[in-house]
Amino acid sequence: MNLSRVFHAKSIAIIGASLDETKRGYQAIKTLQREGFEGDIYPVNPKLESVRGIKCFASVTDIFDPVDVALITTPPATIPAVMEECGRKGVAGVVIIAGGFGELGNSGRKKEEEIVELAEKYNIRIIGPNTSGMISLKNNLNLVGLDDVPKGDIALLSQSGNIALHLITEAKLRSQKGFSFYVGVGNEADLKFHEYLEFFGEDPDTKTILMYVEGLREGRKFLQQAHRTTLKKPVVLLKSGRSTTGRKSAGSHTGALAGISEVARTAFQRAGIITIENSDELFPVAESLSNLPPIKNNRIAILADGGGHATIAADLLTDYNIDIPGLAEKTKKKLAGFLPGNASLINPVDVAGGTDANPSIFADCARALLEDDHVDGLLIVGLFGGYGIRFADKLRFMEEDAAHRMGKMIKEFNKPIIFQSLYNAANSHSLELLRYYGIPCYESLDIACRCMAALCDYGSYLDTYHKKSVKFVFNCGARAKPAGKQIIDQARQEKRLALLEPEAKKMLHLHDVPVDLDRVAKTAGEAVNLAKELGGEVVLKIVSPDILHKTDAGGVRLGLESPEDIEAAFKDIMTNAEKYKPGAELTGCMVSRMEEDGVEIIIGTKIDEQFGPVIMFGLGGILVEVVKDVSFRVLPLSRKAAKNMIGEIKSAPILNGVRGKPPVDKKALVDLLMTVSEIIEAYPQIEEMDLNPVIAHEDGISLVDARIILKDPEDPTCDEH
Amino acid sequence: MNLSRVFHAKSIAIIGASLDETKRGYQAIKTLQREGFEGDIYPVNPKLESVRGIKCFASVTDIFDPVDVALITTPPATIPAVMEECGRKGVAGVVIIAGGFGELGNSGRKKEEEIVELAEKYNIRIIGPNTSGMISLKNNLNLVGLDDVPKGDIALLSQSGNIALHLITEAKLRSQKGFSFYVGVGNEADLKFHEYLEFFGEDPDTKTILMYVEGLREGRKFLQQAHRTTLKKPVVLLKSGRSTTGRKSAGSHTGALAGISEVARTAFQRAGIITIENSDELFPVAESLSNLPPIKNNRIAILADGGGHATIAADLLTDYNIDIPGLAEKTKKKLAGFLPGNASLINPVDVAGGTDANPSIFADCARALLEDDHVDGLLIVGLFGGYGIRFADKLRFMEEDAAHRMGKMIKEFNKPIIFQSLYNAANSHSLELLRYYGIPCYESLDIACRCMAALCDYGSYLDTYHKKSVKFVFNCGARAKPAGKQIIDQARQEKRLALLEPEAKKMLHLHDVPVDLDRVAKTAGEAVNLAKELGGEVVLKIVSPDILHKTDAGGVRLGLESPEDIEAAFKDIMTNAEKYKPGAELTGCMVSRMEEDGVEIIIGTKIDEQFGPVIMFGLGGILVEVVKDVSFRVLPLSRKAAKNMIGEIKSAPILNGVRGKPPVDKKALVDLLMTVSEIIEAYPQIEEMDLNPVIAHEDGISLVDARIILKDPEDPTCDEH
Repeated sequence: MNLSRVFHAKSIAIIGASLDETKRGYQAIKTLQREGFEGDIYPVNPKLESVRGIKCFASVTDIFDPVDVALITTPPATIPAVMEECGRKGVAGVVIIAGGFGELGNSGRKKEEEIVELAEKYNIRIIGPNTSGMISLKNNLNLVGLDDVPKGDIALLSQSGNIALHLITEAKLRSQKGFSFYVGVGNEADLKFHEYLEFFGEDPDTKTILMYVEGLREGRKFLQQAHRTTLKKPVVLLKSGRSTTGRKSAGSHTGALAGISEVARTAFQRAGIITIENSDELFPVAESLSNLPPIKNNRIAILADGGGHATIAADLLTDYNIDIPGLAEKTKKKLAGFLPGNASLINPVDVAGGTDANPSIFADCARALLEDDHVDGLLIVGLFGGYGIRFADKLRFMEEDAAHRMGKMIKEFNKPIIFQSLYNAANSHSLELLRYYGIPCYESLDIACRCMAALCDYGSYLDTYHKKSVKFVFNCGARAKPAGKQIIDQARQEKRLALLEPEAKKMLHLHDVPVDLDRVAKTAGEAVNLAKELGGEVVLKIVSPDILHKTDAGGVRLGLESPEDIEAAFKDIMTNAEKYKPGAELTGCMVSRMEEDGVEIIIGTKIDEQFGPVIMFGLGGILVEVVKDVSFRVLPLSRKAAKNMIGEIKSAPILNGVRGKPPVDKKALVDLLMTVSEIIEAYPQIEEMDLNPVIAHEDGISLVDARIILKDPEDPTCDEH
Repeated sequence: MNLSRVFHAKSIAIIGASLDETKRGYQAIKTLQREGFEGDIYPVNPKLESVRGIKCFASVTDIFDPVDVALITTPPATIPAVMEECGRKGVAGVVIIAGGFGELGNSGRKKEEEIVELAEKYNIRIIGPNTSGMISLKNNLNLVGLDDVPKGDIALLSQSGNIALHLITEAKLRSQKGFSFYVGVGNEADLKFHEYLEFFGEDPDTKTILMYVEGLREGRKFLQQAHRTTLKKPVVLLKSGRSTTGRKSAGSHTGALAGISEVARTAFQRAGIITIENSDELFPVAESLSNLPPIKNNRIAILADGGGHATIAADLLTDYNIDIPGLAEKTKKKLAGFLPGNASLINPVDVAGGTDANPSIFADCARALLEDDHVDGLLIVGLFGGYGIRFADKLRFMEEDAAHRMGKMIKEFNKPIIFQSLYNAANSHSLELLRYYGIPCYESLDIACRCMAALCDYGSYLDTYHKKSVKFVFNCGARAKPAGKQIIDQARQEKRLALLEPEAKKMLHLHDVPVDLDRVAKTAGEAVNLAKELGGEVVLKIVSPDILHKTDAGGVRLGLESPEDIEAAFKDIMTNAEKYKPGAELTGCMVSRMEEDGVEIIIGTKIDEQFGPVIMFGLGGILVEVVKDVSFRVLPLSRKAAKNMIGEIKSAPILNGVRGKPPVDKKALVDLLMTVSEIIEAYPQIEEMDLNPVIAHEDGISLVDARIILKDPEDPTCDEH
């Protein structure tokens, strides 16, 4: 479907056109006229002759020329009929303002499905419903009824009209930056975040994509698309609805689901998205990424005219893991040439009053710092922009000179400069000049540092992505093995949702996990024979489709060697199991080798409601159970992501060997995580997999227990995640 | 010393008066005149006749009338001589602008000591050196040379002139709030943070104290004073210099030390200080605490005119552990009376367009919410202040009506209201009105929520403080026992800094820790006899002043019972120890009972460079060593702090019993922490104490090993922390 006809529409029908100035059916026409939309405007209302001087049509089907987009402002009940007409007219897209759909729960969801079916039937794309509308700034196509939206190169996608209004107002009052598009995503009934992302990713007028998200309908597709888009341009995102109340609040107005914030955070990061926690940073970060080159090497110089701002900035950049390197001797010499003797020439550079009488020296310092090979970006903090207020009026002009010179340095050095000025709210001309050159200025140290961090994050992402050419492939379905499918089919036929332990292990074995295929003994005699074949100490475990928690059922016995012990243990287990669940089907006992000592690992997968399958990694025992020291990733994994998962838990040093123990085989753990990822992708019928415990040895791993639970066959995701 | 004569000075000498407009010796006189200082101004400069029409004196001693404060603007080298003259004149306080003292390291520190000695000799108090100056707003005593500082009830203490300038500029441009005093604390050579805190704590014109701190010279005294001051009025503090670079930056301009940020955070919190992490929040939080009543019960209602702001606000308040309670049925009914059917009447309340045509309805909603007993404070978020811009110009007046009505509700209900408005930067009259009534308005959701959280934190602090009357007494020196002192003296005489294990245990025993006094066997035969007396399995451990790490030396043997085993073990240990450190003095072996199983605990103390003795608590083994799951407190402990320390580690659930184990005796752990606190306070000669491990049982604890290290006798803190 070509979204271009929607976003570059040349003809608009306003269905529900009105003469009432407070109605959207009036405001939209007024704004289209005021903003100078160059295409055709067709008011539609059977009761009116004309609106604001434009002929009104009784139905969209009465319009002779083609209609690209219809803005539907009529009440929810009328919408199916209107959609029918739009379909017959051949409209490419509709913007549905009305609420009363999915956000109301089940009853609304049915109405939503109805209009989505109509859209599919007629090949119409829907923005909304329950949306504030859409603006395409380039051709002055403004369907929101909001005047004077500043033009620029940021595409804004928001699930809240008020947050969009907030960002637009911020741009208008505080910046020289504006927007290429705005879309109020609404309920995502038809068009979803990932489709908008794809379109804006290709749009030549958009440099940065800014998103406010409460819940993603298609999280997995969104991540796939984001992986592609972030290689072309930065995507900045704030995801709200973390808290229970926040989620309730989000749910009540978008009908969306919000998932585990921990999973979301790492998933967005892996996809190269710049995730924002503090809404104050949302517009500034998009502005900085849009204006300035990204930073590859994470090294920033701070230039300050006072100690306090320098100290706080150093703290903040350090919190963001940004390097504040020492300066080259050559740089120090240059700086010493303009600055007084008591200036601090380490990084942060403190001019120590050296600019009080002549702030144009800032430009000399900036040049010296940007010429330094150790420095990839420059943060200037303090009073710049207010020297005329603080010291003497004529200093304003010296600041302006410095602003012109520094403005040109961005292109010359291809290194970013960001300003923090305590006089930002005083509207000084020098700061206006900086903004004209694309240098962002903020009153807040936190925001200025966050923007610098975003440039570093995005630069590092692009850099490591290309270097190691990490792939995030979402389609391993092809890797499914016939024997694996057979195991699942078998369980399905027997109406089981849980695979038996031997089945689960066989599945892992099929995908090359080094697991001893445990043998199942149906009698005590068989158990003795199987143990003899294995040699050494063995473990017996009950096998029964009716018993999931084997230990609870008294169904596990460890460290058995003599035939007598094995025989007695077999009988005990059978008696215990029968007692635990009378009438349970008892297949027999699994006989396996006693595993050597090592570090206990737990690996688990489950289905996240937003992102589909996710994987968890942690160290067995209290570290997972009590301390909750685990890492999560959305599946599938790249090897890099698997390595990071292992490295980022707090207890990771245990894997390197503590208290005289040797390090464990991390490569084998990475392999195992990759295999789990492959299996989950290959068999979408799997709901959950638990490998608990896996014992990691100095050389290799042993899988002690494995559990696989299947999805309910009714689950529509059984065929595809 | 009476600081009142300094801060309410009636006569000021400007030493280093100047005719040069760019010099402080000119600017200060000009500002005193412009701001209308009502006392006497005495320029001092032997080379001048007069400055700005005021007679100039050759020396401060030439002035006939008394001089309360001298502003010294002359270079560092001249200062001792100037101090001598001020001393002879009987000046109460001096403000020393010049740098070149402690911030330069050792050389500067000597100069600083010299002027402090002079101050002591003449009973003068020093503000600075290396300060931007001092302002006492009430009597227009402005020694900073900064015009138009807004007056109000916030006392500002800052270790950075630029941060002070930032906060003052923010107050001027963004608020109707101002300051009672400003002090640039500088190097704290003489007057320290705690002394300023005490003075402003008593000052009737100051409602809130706002501090920017890079490093505290006297952290312990500061905490003591803060404990007293925060009961009277809120103290808001930002401490920078957390990072290495930040610390370097701070050190280079205040010469102060910065300590462990984790320790600082909990110490400030315990003292009732509101600690700020994000400098953007510093002024707003002080403003809110100064204007609004604190919140005791942590329950907030959110009123919104759009979903996005409500969702983000709910997330943020939840992050701050604030309760967003459901509303009373009565409240919902009232709200349903003014709001449309689709409005959300749960909390957050979303007016769903119900105010678009009449924003005065905000006041009706606010009243309904404040009348609800479940609600202790109200956060209003969204477009208020911009209805005239967004919808129709005349709505401005309805907003103003609502502002007047809500402004009066603060007093009527004694519950706070805070506004977030996306139109905050648009300078609307309705927001100006809200500020007039003391209702703070911010553009940032984060800042608005942080202010609400500060009201909750301060309210809860006052509430729990009074209820449980927690004491934070810094003087247990009286608890020292003669026998304890004797142990320390003995070690000192023997030139040992480490107490022997039996000595350390005896020290703990003296203070009622239930510890078996281990007996030391000098021969294998004695060991056998001592073991017989104890009965059951025993442990042998080497006792030697030369061996600290007993396990490394092969000096520990566990689980011995038969006389033969004990004899052999004794001999082994002696041989190992001799091999480990040839010539070491070997006192013998300690004989102690084998301890029963339980949870291993580690308790340690050390001296923090800012706050003096601090204590650490954690669970033994990997949880402390690898996961670093520990809690810290500044000593001495209250029982509440000891309980919190135990409860706040991540592995705390282990103490409640996991995997079928019984809970451990937490009271015994609290007792032990309290005793350690008492011992550290009682014997300032102790540098470090390590109890590792302590075994916590279902009933009681066992102390397995104890180590006490003494301070170097040269350390001046040996007599007092």
